[in-house]
Amino acid sequence: MTQASICTIGDEILIGQITDTNSSGISRILESIGIKVTRMLSIGDDRNEIIANLRNELANNDIVICTGGLGPTKDDITKAALSKLSGSERLVMNGKQSDIITNILHSRGLDSLEINKKQALVPEKCEVIPNKLGTAPIMIFRSSCQDGSHCATLYSLPGVPHEAIGAMPDIINDISEHYPLSDIYHKSVMTFGMAESLLSEKIESWENDLPEDIHLAYLPNQLTGVRLRLSIYGGKKETEEQRIDKEIAKLQGILGNTIYSLEDDTLENTVGRLLKKAGKTLSAAESCTGGKISELVTSVPGASEYYLGSVTSYAIKIKERILGVPEKTISEHGVVSSEVAAAMAEGVRRITGSDYSVSTTGLAGPSGDEWNPVGTVWIGVCGPNGTTTVKKNYKNDRKRNIERFAAAALNTLRIVIGTDIND
Amino acid sequence: MTQASICTIGDEILIGQITDTNSSGISRILESIGIKVTRMLSIGDDRNEIIANLRNELANNDIVICTGGLGPTKDDITKAALSKLSGSERLVMNGKQSDIITNILHSRGLDSLEINKKQALVPEKCEVIPNKLGTAPIMIFRSSCQDGSHCATLYSLPGVPHEAIGAMPDIINDISEHYPLSDIYHKSVMTFGMAESLLSEKIESWENDLPEDIHLAYLPNQLTGVRLRLSIYGGKKETEEQRIDKEIAKLQGILGNTIYSLEDDTLENTVGRLLKKAGKTLSAAESCTGGKISELVTSVPGASEYYLGSVTSYAIKIKERILGVPEKTISEHGVVSSEVAAAMAEGVRRITGSDYSVSTTGLAGPSGDEWNPVGTVWIGVCGPNGTTTVKKNYKNDRKRNIERFAAAALNTLRIVIGTDIND
Repeated sequence: MTQASICTIGDEILIGQITDTNSSGISRILESIGIKVTRMLSIGDDRNEIIANLRNELANNDIVICTGGLGPTKDDITKAALSKLSGSERLVMNGKQSDIITNILHSRGLDSLEINKKQALVPEKCEVIPNKLGTAPIMIFRSSCQDGSHCATLYSLPGVPHEAIGAMPDIINDISEHYPLSDIYHKSVMTFGMAESLLSEKIESWENDLPEDIHLAYLPNQLTGVRLRLSIYGGKKETEEQRIDKEIAKLQGILGNTIYSLEDDTLENTVGRLLKKAGKTLSAAESCTGGKISELVTSVPGASEYYLGSVTSYAIKIKERILGVPEKTISEHGVVSSEVAAAMAEGVRRITGSDYSVSTTGLAGPSGDEWNPVGTVWIGVCGPNGTTTVKKNYKNDRKRNIERFAAAALNTLRIVIGTDIND
Repeated sequence: MTQASICTIGDEILIGQITDTNSSGISRILESIGIKVTRMLSIGDDRNEIIANLRNELANNDIVICTGGLGPTKDDITKAALSKLSGSERLVMNGKQSDIITNILHSRGLDSLEINKKQALVPEKCEVIPNKLGTAPIMIFRSSCQDGSHCATLYSLPGVPHEAIGAMPDIINDISEHYPLSDIYHKSVMTFGMAESLLSEKIESWENDLPEDIHLAYLPNQLTGVRLRLSIYGGKKETEEQRIDKEIAKLQGILGNTIYSLEDDTLENTVGRLLKKAGKTLSAAESCTGGKISELVTSVPGASEYYLGSVTSYAIKIKERILGVPEKTISEHGVVSSEVAAAMAEGVRRITGSDYSVSTTGLAGPSGDEWNPVGTVWIGVCGPNGTTTVKKNYKNDRKRNIERFAAAALNTLRIVIGTDIND
């Protein structure tokens, strides 16, 4: 199996100023074509550190993909290290990248600055793939295998995440021309509403009965729930996928409605798919989630087909004035109540004219109120068959509570719509 | 200077299923107390890999902090590796962690499962800090320095991000008892609206004149703009901070209103601070940003003091029906226009009764319309002194465009409010 290491370069990563998202993005792509990522490494902007670490990674892997260290204000160090590693004596100007830099700056209404032009300089012993998305070039360094030593390829990518990920199709093309790719088969089962440990106990005997070559991974996520991932390495596509499907069918029998998708999916995608299938529209009334539900729903391309809009009623008077929640309902039951959640959902459905609506009213934190602890939320879902409300309690900080509330609201919504459609 | 390495354990990281946020969170904390992070490393759930890599990191650092590998479904491998590394012959039950596990599960309405109880088992040669936030214990392994060999400490933390970060105050306490901490002084200057390369050219002569011991870092971010960070290692707090302040004062002269804060800050915090200072309230009308502005504003604890709420008018009829944007304005100028942005901001200010309001109407993607390319947005800000509209163009994918639109809207808002307050 072809092995790869991913290396990110930059002091800003080591001092924690930015979180490295390139490594996970790249490994996901490598993994999907059957390349095993053995390690990920982050190192600073230091010539000797870069040389020593990349040399070590190249000695232990077939492929090393590094990102970063190529920004306009600090690419000298990285390029000096890559020159040393590749035995390049000088930097040469890459014409194609230079033209791209001029065009990008021009389209932003800027003149081409010296500092940007310098980015088109590359070590002489490298192959360049022009980076259409940004100013830093993509470089390939092939170690010569003629002396019988270990032969590995170093790919140097820009650090800007969408440029690094944007370069991967070209990198994959190059890899597939030079390395044998083994097959790998994955399927995901998305669940929501059951903690990892409980899920694990519930499917214990199923898990124990799994054929030895089918690997299971538990992948919990705040917003999308626990993903169960089944993988087989090698074998024939059709046969292996059928074997995985057979196991998934058993799992559906055990977990039922806790499963919301049999693809690598999100709740907002699932809700969107159900709405499109039913030809129905959606609106939202958010209090404690402050716009998070709407943001998730509209993160799906094409959401305008079914999503009409939302009201974030952060202040009580907005609940009354815009959503028409009766003052009496609030004073009698409190803002965080089943009655207010229902009135909010019904209110936004009425004023937008949507088929379905979802609402939240709760306490994300930092503090609770007289009646409810932090982490309490009432969720309302209103549709053609009436209004449903659900209470949930989470014990997280503000940011995580908001995410959990929004995810739980979308989960309630997909259960209600799913039931309506199947009825 | 005390040196540390951060190591995350878990196949789910190597296959790209989750993005490691622990490393950046931990390094930010270590850095703030003057500990230099030399490397970050991610490795898989493999006993021999864990042993070899941790041994290597311990040989080259004073401190190694590792997270992960302790979930209920897979902690056997990591604990076996830690036992081998520490020379522990057996696992022992930690009573305090066992009690915490029982309480956590009980508060979730669950019985204590065998699989969770097993989490309270630890290698005999470790010190345990009970983890109040979760089921996996925090473990400290001290290598004996009596044989004259390199002496280092290994801290093993849970992988769940809020538990790992939540454990850091205890870890910092322990580190400060065992290692000398050097001083480090940082200040941040937050800018928005100028690209890194342009900023760098604009402040080039200032940067060249910086004293050699003041380090400058450029830290660009989608949502918060480019942060400039000035640092000095060592020296006396008051003197060094004054020297940094002097340089920042010069920078303010050059960059003016491009600077929005002299702390490590966000646009939504800055807007909140300005509104509180002025005693004014805010509302929002979002189209293409779909709730992102509202989500950012309400991510600030205490936002309910000034934020009334928002309308996400994804469908045209919601713009007309709820916000009162005249049908004629839309048909004459198009949805993505200065006139519609203004009418949306004025509409939401009217129906909520807020002092200020902000609006967006644009094309986040995947496709543009007849008149505007993807990445076009009109921003409206309405306040006591009238309505301002601004057009911006970005060339990103949908997700990044939504973020840039929301950030640009908050930036326009802070400039308008800031001007009003200073008038």
